[in-house]
Amino acid sequence: MFKKMVIAVLLYSISYAVPHNVDASLNVDSRKNVIFMVMDGTNSDVITLARHYKGKALALDEILSGGVRTYSLRSAITDSAAAATAMATGQKTIVDFIGMVPVEEKDGTFRGRPVANVLEAAKEKGLATGIVATAPVQHATPAAFSAHSNSRHQMKEIGIQQAHQNFDVMLGGGKKYSFAKMEGMLDHVSTKNELMDSNSRQLIGYFSEEDMAYDFDRKKLHPKQPSLAEMTKKALQTLDRNPSGFLLFIEGSKVDFAGHKNDPVGMISEVLAFDEAVKVALQFAKEDQNTLLIAVADHGNSGLTMGNRQTDQTYPETPSEEFTEPLKKASLTVAGAISQLKQNKSNIEDVLKSYGLDNLTKTEIKRLKKEKDIEKAMVQMMTQRAHLGFTTRGHSGEDVFLYTYGGKGVLHKPQGLINNTELPGYVIKHLALPPLSELTKKRFVPAKEHYINMGFKTEIKVKENKQAIFIAKKSGTFIQYPANQNIRIVNGRKETLNGISVYNGKDFWIPIQ
Amino acid sequence: MFKKMVIAVLLYSISYAVPHNVDASLNVDSRKNVIFMVMDGTNSDVITLARHYKGKALALDEILSGGVRTYSLRSAITDSAAAATAMATGQKTIVDFIGMVPVEEKDGTFRGRPVANVLEAAKEKGLATGIVATAPVQHATPAAFSAHSNSRHQMKEIGIQQAHQNFDVMLGGGKKYSFAKMEGMLDHVSTKNELMDSNSRQLIGYFSEEDMAYDFDRKKLHPKQPSLAEMTKKALQTLDRNPSGFLLFIEGSKVDFAGHKNDPVGMISEVLAFDEAVKVALQFAKEDQNTLLIAVADHGNSGLTMGNRQTDQTYPETPSEEFTEPLKKASLTVAGAISQLKQNKSNIEDVLKSYGLDNLTKTEIKRLKKEKDIEKAMVQMMTQRAHLGFTTRGHSGEDVFLYTYGGKGVLHKPQGLINNTELPGYVIKHLALPPLSELTKKRFVPAKEHYINMGFKTEIKVKENKQAIFIAKKSGTFIQYPANQNIRIVNGRKETLNGISVYNGKDFWIPIQ
Repeated sequence: MFKKMVIAVLLYSISYAVPHNVDASLNVDSRKNVIFMVMDGTNSDVITLARHYKGKALALDEILSGGVRTYSLRSAITDSAAAATAMATGQKTIVDFIGMVPVEEKDGTFRGRPVANVLEAAKEKGLATGIVATAPVQHATPAAFSAHSNSRHQMKEIGIQQAHQNFDVMLGGGKKYSFAKMEGMLDHVSTKNELMDSNSRQLIGYFSEEDMAYDFDRKKLHPKQPSLAEMTKKALQTLDRNPSGFLLFIEGSKVDFAGHKNDPVGMISEVLAFDEAVKVALQFAKEDQNTLLIAVADHGNSGLTMGNRQTDQTYPETPSEEFTEPLKKASLTVAGAISQLKQNKSNIEDVLKSYGLDNLTKTEIKRLKKEKDIEKAMVQMMTQRAHLGFTTRGHSGEDVFLYTYGGKGVLHKPQGLINNTELPGYVIKHLALPPLSELTKKRFVPAKEHYINMGFKTEIKVKENKQAIFIAKKSGTFIQYPANQNIRIVNGRKETLNGISVYNGKDFWIPIQ
Repeated sequence: MFKKMVIAVLLYSISYAVPHNVDASLNVDSRKNVIFMVMDGTNSDVITLARHYKGKALALDEILSGGVRTYSLRSAITDSAAAATAMATGQKTIVDFIGMVPVEEKDGTFRGRPVANVLEAAKEKGLATGIVATAPVQHATPAAFSAHSNSRHQMKEIGIQQAHQNFDVMLGGGKKYSFAKMEGMLDHVSTKNELMDSNSRQLIGYFSEEDMAYDFDRKKLHPKQPSLAEMTKKALQTLDRNPSGFLLFIEGSKVDFAGHKNDPVGMISEVLAFDEAVKVALQFAKEDQNTLLIAVADHGNSGLTMGNRQTDQTYPETPSEEFTEPLKKASLTVAGAISQLKQNKSNIEDVLKSYGLDNLTKTEIKRLKKEKDIEKAMVQMMTQRAHLGFTTRGHSGEDVFLYTYGGKGVLHKPQGLINNTELPGYVIKHLALPPLSELTKKRFVPAKEHYINMGFKTEIKVKENKQAIFIAKKSGTFIQYPANQNIRIVNGRKETLNGISVYNGKDFWIPIQ
């Protein structure tokens, strides 16, 4: 502190004679960080409704700065894979593609070509990197910030790549798709207490086989799982030890999961859980002053509105409570409630009550019991009680809100209306990282062309376990690159590489040091 | 220009020794203006869809700066009257109230108490003021910026008040509710050509009996009406002559009208017409550099989304054209199309085609002909063809986008998430106007109390034509204040007042000089 003040005074006396803004030069700590937060599938209405439900301002409310266009390369409505690829790599792409841009084949289909992302650029420069999500960490959004695949559904392949990306922090769901190497390498935690007690400089934690619990159901049904805010706090503590700064990606994954179910209880509570994580990140950024915080929805989902056909006439006289009181009766999300339903449905009344559906007649309960899709019937009932509207069980195409914070040490913040592809540019600029196009050229070199130019013969072998290997041979030299890993084997000797090898089913890319 | 440069150089040499931002002091023209634009009933999705339809960026896209909370005093979803009262006076109020805040009666009902608005404050300080709308100018939103009434439906009363507010510009619809005095007083225009040719310093124009035509229908069905952009341009030219600066309120009224009909063609084309007016205003503000431009939606409407139940599965592979091509086939809004339907419906095929509904089978046309509400059937058909969703024919409760521009001379701009009641504060600050609470005390004095304190006897008389008059009597003095006007009659002699008298059916307020 004393040192900071001396430098500040010194700078001030120098700058006094010079008539321009000197704030920036006052930051003596040159270590820069970025926290990049995504709430998946969240439209404006959900955020407003969550605020009504909470009854006071959100952390997000303090940092609203603009809006984001979300469309993908070939669709007005994006999926999460294309949206996250845009935000991680600056490139628009097509549905399902993870960190890849499409190349059209002769038959009109598309295969991916890998493009570098901001976390790879941060690692290249020696920064610490981390991924936090409540979905499996191999799910579309975190995947596009950490892997390269033709398909978001290749979650095991994505898991292998993640294990070879040298992340300092990876916390979330998806143990089922995780790669053993990672678990062996690093401190591995699997409960909230283990997470909190860990003092490791590198921290890997899978807290569920698939996605983690909805935050609203966590305490009751999965009390050993940490919250997104808790994971965020621990991730920041861990990454902050790195003297070169860090880039942390965080996803509040399950607003979108609840959106696809049209479950307003799940949507609201996930927004509020995300907002708690934003609060933690914002506090860190305020104390640090060199941290750029970006929080953004990747796209809308469900078309939720406060107001529906019931309120066509009555909308201007509908107090906030008429929307929130029915929702407040729920103590579980619809998924949480349904998970407690016994095979013989004998406890249906309790299940309905746990979702806030009280005051039902015996006939109504009987009818619900017979429903083929009880979950759907339940959300529809809640939707009516809370005067809400939905237009779809898919995503929607509107511009979403952008939230940004940066203290004195943050010179360039995204604001106004931007395209989702512009976001990585702000990360690159703030962290002074190499341009992604340059990194792509070094990290993803067409393997065949590269070795043929050097007089090698090449081939790609796909083993029975689907493991693809690129092979280059020349007199006395036999080189193998297993796909999805950061290694090559030269005449039987394993070498660690600066990046991962990627195979799209036809072509192979390798990192060149 | 020469003078400006001399001053600039002088300021620069003074400021050179002082290490802070000098931009503001470089503005030698101290005349400040505000352009306050409202697009009524417009959610984020409509704006996104309008951009897809246009195929390029909107003027609004350049100036997105945050979001606005829209709820009213007693409802989570506002009507236009309460929303506009909030934006004009800084006070949340209840449904239907125009420039009034509610006072509860013993029987639990509410009557209004008038509160001063930003246009009254601007006029008080000698600035020029103007109102432009495509609805009747007496309609809720422009009314709340220019009048005080318990009910938005008292449009004649509102019209009388407007005629006594000394506006320099008033352009829009609503001839039916206008007050003769205004027409006699000022240059009065009623067609686009008359408007464009006018050289008056004060300019009143009613271009239709009720609301003006939808912009999309204008050229074909109402070619003599000006566009919102044309009215904006002329209003700015006229007001800009005032040496003290101006405050201009502009409403793109009919996005909301089309929203209530769930007509996407009407909604999009009205957003684009509003955007053309924003373009004009933005250009003015950029050239001027002392003009604060605010553009904002007052609330959402209809719950329109790109994406609906049809796209539950297909949304990530739905090109922009699949939404816009069906809409582009329309050459009239649904209201415009239906206005051309003959009594015997013999031309129904042409009517359907003009709304873009082609390729219909004979059976479908027959069925449509028999529909009780053909308009509704038409918008539903278009909605399906364009893969759009709607949740309501009423308003919706979500936070809406905020747009702001201000050049070097604008020191305080609204940005981030704000409440709609915060907007007038920025107008007051930029124009250095008196606080609205002060003005309310001077402009709306409880008449009875005021005169009784001076020893008068008072009464309120309501004539057969519903004209209410406040009367104060003392030996030799007989004073009359007719409601809604800016005059009083003292012993038969008419005096012009600084503001209007307001009667809420029980209490009377009068301006005190």
